[in-house]
Amino acid sequence: MAQTLIEPRTLRGFRDYPPELQLPREELLAKARQVYRSYGYLPMDTPALEYAEILLGKGGEETDKQLYRFRDHGGRDVALRFDLTVPFARFAAEHIQRYGTPFRRYHIGPVWRGENPQRGRYREFVQCDFDTIGTTSNAADIEVVFVIYDLLRTLGFERFQVHVNHRWVLNGLLEELGLVERTVAVLRALDKYGKIGREGVEEELRTQAGLESGQAGKILDLAEIRGSPAEILEHLEKTFGHQVKVARGIACLRELYAVTRAAGLPEGVVQLDLRIARGLDYYTGTVYETFLDDLPGIGSVCSGGRYDNLASLYTKQVLPGVGASLGVDRLLAAMQELNLLPASYATAPVLVVFFVADKLALYMEVAGRLRRAGIGAEVYPEAKKLREQLAYANKRGHRLAVIGGEDELTRGVWQVKDLRAQSQHTVADADLVTTVQRILSG
Amino acid sequence: MAQTLIEPRTLRGFRDYPPELQLPREELLAKARQVYRSYGYLPMDTPALEYAEILLGKGGEETDKQLYRFRDHGGRDVALRFDLTVPFARFAAEHIQRYGTPFRRYHIGPVWRGENPQRGRYREFVQCDFDTIGTTSNAADIEVVFVIYDLLRTLGFERFQVHVNHRWVLNGLLEELGLVERTVAVLRALDKYGKIGREGVEEELRTQAGLESGQAGKILDLAEIRGSPAEILEHLEKTFGHQVKVARGIACLRELYAVTRAAGLPEGVVQLDLRIARGLDYYTGTVYETFLDDLPGIGSVCSGGRYDNLASLYTKQVLPGVGASLGVDRLLAAMQELNLLPASYATAPVLVVFFVADKLALYMEVAGRLRRAGIGAEVYPEAKKLREQLAYANKRGHRLAVIGGEDELTRGVWQVKDLRAQSQHTVADADLVTTVQRILSG
Repeated sequence: MAQTLIEPRTLRGFRDYPPELQLPREELLAKARQVYRSYGYLPMDTPALEYAEILLGKGGEETDKQLYRFRDHGGRDVALRFDLTVPFARFAAEHIQRYGTPFRRYHIGPVWRGENPQRGRYREFVQCDFDTIGTTSNAADIEVVFVIYDLLRTLGFERFQVHVNHRWVLNGLLEELGLVERTVAVLRALDKYGKIGREGVEEELRTQAGLESGQAGKILDLAEIRGSPAEILEHLEKTFGHQVKVARGIACLRELYAVTRAAGLPEGVVQLDLRIARGLDYYTGTVYETFLDDLPGIGSVCSGGRYDNLASLYTKQVLPGVGASLGVDRLLAAMQELNLLPASYATAPVLVVFFVADKLALYMEVAGRLRRAGIGAEVYPEAKKLREQLAYANKRGHRLAVIGGEDELTRGVWQVKDLRAQSQHTVADADLVTTVQRILSG
Repeated sequence: MAQTLIEPRTLRGFRDYPPELQLPREELLAKARQVYRSYGYLPMDTPALEYAEILLGKGGEETDKQLYRFRDHGGRDVALRFDLTVPFARFAAEHIQRYGTPFRRYHIGPVWRGENPQRGRYREFVQCDFDTIGTTSNAADIEVVFVIYDLLRTLGFERFQVHVNHRWVLNGLLEELGLVERTVAVLRALDKYGKIGREGVEEELRTQAGLESGQAGKILDLAEIRGSPAEILEHLEKTFGHQVKVARGIACLRELYAVTRAAGLPEGVVQLDLRIARGLDYYTGTVYETFLDDLPGIGSVCSGGRYDNLASLYTKQVLPGVGASLGVDRLLAAMQELNLLPASYATAPVLVVFFVADKLALYMEVAGRLRRAGIGAEVYPEAKKLREQLAYANKRGHRLAVIGGEDELTRGVWQVKDLRAQSQHTVADADLVTTVQRILSG
C-alpha cells in the first residue's frame, strides 16, 4: 500500500531546538531561575493565548501585523502573546491585591511575533523577564544592576558592562535645549546610535527631528561623553545641574553608582551612557543595556528600565515598577561564539555497555547505583557488539564506558574505559562508584 | 481624562500560574529533567505552531474541533500543537539521520486542545514526555519502569504502583477467543474499566462490541485476575501459553518483572494488569499506567507504551519506540492533596530589612554575601517601618529577617530574627553567614 508522505518541515521563522541547542538553553534558563530566586523574585506564568483586546490594549481595533490573531472555536477574538509584559500587566490588575506590593516576579516563556525573520530573529522565542512592581524606590532600580551582574557571571561571562541612563536626565536636557516637543524623534534617533553611529544619528536628527546641525551636534557631544560614571556625573552636574529634572536624574544615577560600588560590584561594570533611550513610549526612569566586551556587535544582552505605571489599561491602581529582560537567544549565540558551551551534549556521563544478553539486570542495577550517587548513567538498550556501543558513546559524547563481559562478571569486576583519556581500568564492583566519581571530578 | 478600562481576564479553559502554583510546577519539571538526564535522555523542543497538515496527518482535510487552527499572515494553514508526539515524529523524520539510533529524548512544553474545559482539565497544559526510539529491544521497555519509579520517588511519592500490560497478550487472547475482528471495540470497552467498573464494561462489551454475555464474562474474568506478577504470568502461561502471541507477550512481561526486581525495584511496584489497553490505534507492545496508592481516584499519573513506528506519515524509515508521559497537572494536584508541597512560596529564605535609608549599600552587600554562600536573600526595597517589612516577610513566608538599625551597624552586628521560631539572635557581622546557614539547615 503506497502512501504519500507528508514533507516534514517547520514554518518559516520557526525552528526546532535539537539536543545540542536545547541542553544549553535549559541550562541557561535554570541558571537564570536560580539567580532570580536568590533575590526573592517569584515565578509566574500566564496563558500563551489571550483575548486580542487584552494584548492589543487601546489598539484593539487595529490589525497588528506582528500579532498571531484568530477566532477560536467559540468565535472569540484571540491572539498569541507577543511579550510577557502585557500579560504581567493583565495579571497584576487581576491579582495584585492578593499578593500585595512590592511584588517581585520572574517570567520565562515563549512569545510569538509574525515579523519578517532575519539575521537570527525568529517568530517564536523565549523571553526571560524580571520586574519589581509597586515601588518607586531607587533601591529597586539599583537591584536590577546586581541581578544583571549575577546573571552574566553565573552564565560564565567575565567581561561585560551594564550601561545605565536615566530618562529624567534626557528629558531635562531636551527641556534645557528647548527641544521638548521633539523628544520622541530625538530619542528615537539617539537610540539608533549603536547601529548607525554618530553620522547616522546626526542625519536623522536633522531630517526626522528637524534639528539644526548646531543642536544636533550639541546633543551628540553630550551623548558621546566618555569617562568614569563619577566624571560624567560631575560634568552633567556642572553644566546642567540647575535643571530640576536633570538634577533628579543625576541623584538617582549617583546613588546607583555609589551603592553598586560600595556593595561590591567591580569598577567598570556600571557605565553611564547618555545614548541609551530605549522603549520610548514605556520607560520613564532608569534604563539599562548590557554589552559583552568580547562581542559588542551582538548588541545588548540584557535590557530594561523603570516605568511609571504597568497596568493602566486594566486597572486604576497605579503600579510603578522596574525590570529587565535577559536576551536568551543572543546569549546562547554569544556563549557558542566564546566557547562557553560544553562540547558534548550527553546528559549522562556514563554509558553502561549491554554486553551479555541475559545479564541486563546487572547492568541496570549498576546504572541505578551510579545514579543514586548522582552520576548519570545510560544503559545501551541492545546487546550489540562492543565496538558499536563504544562508537555510540563516542558520538554522543559520553565520558566513560562501564563494561562487564562474561569474564568480568565472573570475577566481580568492571572495565571502566575513559573515552577522553583513552585509558582503561579494571575496578572491583564495590569500588565502581568511587572510581567513577574520582575520574569524573579529576 | 477618563478612560475606559479593559476588563482583565483569561480565556475560558486557560489559567494563570501565580507563584504558589508556578513554583511547585517549576520544581516538578526541574526534578523530571534531572531524572530524564540521569538516564541519558536528551532534551529537545519544537515550535508551538506547525503546518496543520503536519499536525493532522492523514486527517489534514478534516476539521478537528480540538485543534487551534488558523491562517497566518502568509496565508499558511497553521495550528498549535496538541501533543508532543506528533512534533517528535516530524522532528525524527527530518533529523534522526544526524543523531542515529537508539535516540532517547525528553520534551517538556505546553500543548493546546480546544476541548470543553471540565474537572481540572485545561485548554493549555504542559506535557512532559520521554521516549527511546530506534530499537525494539525489551530493555528499553524495562527502562521505562525504572524511569517512572525514579520520577515518582524524586517527587516525594512513596506509595505507588506501575501497572503494566502487553498488547500482544491482549491481542493473542482475543484471537484465542475468536474475537480478532472486535479487537478495537473490546479494548475500548476494557480501557474504561477504571471509570465504569465491571458492570459498565460488561454492558459495553455486549452493546458496543456485540459479544455474548458468556464471552464478555470470560474476558472480564481474565482482565480481573489478581495476584503477584509471577502468579498472573503462571496462570496465563498455563491457560493460553500455547497461543503464539500470548507467549511472546508473556516472555516480555516476564523479563520486565524479573529484571526490575533483580535490579532493585521493591516488590509491589510493578503490577501486571490485563485491563490496561491504552491508545488503541497507537500502542502495539508494552503499555504502562501509574497509580498512587493514596489517591487512586485521580487516575494514572504516568502513562505510555511501545509503538511500532513513530513517523510513518513523514518518512519511510521505520522508527519503533517506547516511552511515557508524566501527568504534570495531576501530580501537582496530588502533591497538594498529600501535603507534599512546601507551605511557603518565598524563593529566598532571608529578608534583609532596609532600615537606615542611607545605608542601602550595606544591606545590599550583606545580601550579596548570603547569596554567594548559596542562601537566597531579598532586600526590602523601601526604608519603611520595621513592622511593615516584617509583616511583608511573614506574608511571603520568609524564614529569617536580617535587621541592622543604626545601633547594630555602629556595633558591627546584625539581629537575626527567626520568623518561624519567633526567636531573635544578635550576631557579629563576620558570623552572619554561618549563623544563617546553621539556622536554615537545623
